[in-house]
Amino acid sequence: MAEPIDFYFDFASPYGYIASHRIDDLAARHGREVAWRPYLLGVAFQRTGIPLVTDQGIRGDYARHDFGRCARYHGVSFQIPDAFPMLAVNPSRAYYWLADQDGAAAKGLARALWRAYFVDNRDISKPEVIAEVAAAQGLDGAAVVAALQDRAIKDRLRQETENAIERGAFGSPYVIVDGEPFWGNDRLDMVEKWLETGGW
Amino acid sequence: MAEPIDFYFDFASPYGYIASHRIDDLAARHGREVAWRPYLLGVAFQRTGIPLVTDQGIRGDYARHDFGRCARYHGVSFQIPDAFPMLAVNPSRAYYWLADQDGAAAKGLARALWRAYFVDNRDISKPEVIAEVAAAQGLDGAAVVAALQDRAIKDRLRQETENAIERGAFGSPYVIVDGEPFWGNDRLDMVEKWLETGGW
Repeated sequence: MAEPIDFYFDFASPYGYIASHRIDDLAARHGREVAWRPYLLGVAFQRTGIPLVTDQGIRGDYARHDFGRCARYHGVSFQIPDAFPMLAVNPSRAYYWLADQDGAAAKGLARALWRAYFVDNRDISKPEVIAEVAAAQGLDGAAVVAALQDRAIKDRLRQETENAIERGAFGSPYVIVDGEPFWGNDRLDMVEKWLETGGW
Repeated sequence: MAEPIDFYFDFASPYGYIASHRIDDLAARHGREVAWRPYLLGVAFQRTGIPLVTDQGIRGDYARHDFGRCARYHGVSFQIPDAFPMLAVNPSRAYYWLADQDGAAAKGLARALWRAYFVDNRDISKPEVIAEVAAAQGLDGAAVVAALQDRAIKDRLRQETENAIERGAFGSPYVIVDGEPFWGNDRLDMVEKWLETGGW
């Protein structure tokens, strides 16, 4: 079987959230799995000198309008949270804590965290919110809070972020299919064409 | 009849060039005309503090790869010109010189200028190249070169650029349909959906 598709995203990214509703079904139509890989987009932005989109004047105004328009276009529930943007260190660590134990459960936790953030307006950068969301998924809330300070988990997120940047990621979502990179939720149609044809 | 769709672009923009092959047919399918409005993206970038994409490190590497990939995806001939990027003042002025006299001829000149730049690797920022391209279109090459220094034409481009920025444009292409803005060639499917449905 072919290697999984790599789905890089930042938990604070509305476009990453929207893409998360589409990417696994899209890949499955072509017999492919998806490896979800949260990383810290802020680190990539520091390296490239790109300011956060919502801090870019009229471009930020456009983005704030476009987030909801894209979500509605794809039938995804969405509102801009009060705590937007947020530093996604903790939800990303929570994801990696679970990912090696149970990949499906880790995706389930990621989806629940996103729902808490973009639908229920909870601040998922806070350990106590993560614990609550995890517990509602049948996970051990105390264990996940402990994992947020675990040296190996911290190193894992740092390493995933470095790998993402080395592989060229500078946005969210950033999808790599057999070495070919695609930036943006609005490129998933092109990702599908690439899977169908093997490239052009 | 409804107002025309506004198609803002910079002549140096590969994505604007690709979109120019699609936008008029797309609009015509919904009984709409398209007003082509070249403007100076560099001025918008100065206002927003956004560096030119090709100067943004790994993001620039991605863009250089993506230009050709998108062009092939849409069946558009393309190569990155030696003179890339270029300051699009002169081709934009040439366009506006003709636009008020003969809109269809102005689009024809724009297409010929783009072909000279992105297919034949000519530097269309140079008046002598513009004159040659215009002459091949059956236009008066000397008249277009004179127009490049015409006060009214200069003011027109300045005003169009100001209007574009006032209306929120910060990229190329930037399409406005009945007040609704769409940034990027990869959003033309969404533009089409908007024209079909009137929005969502």
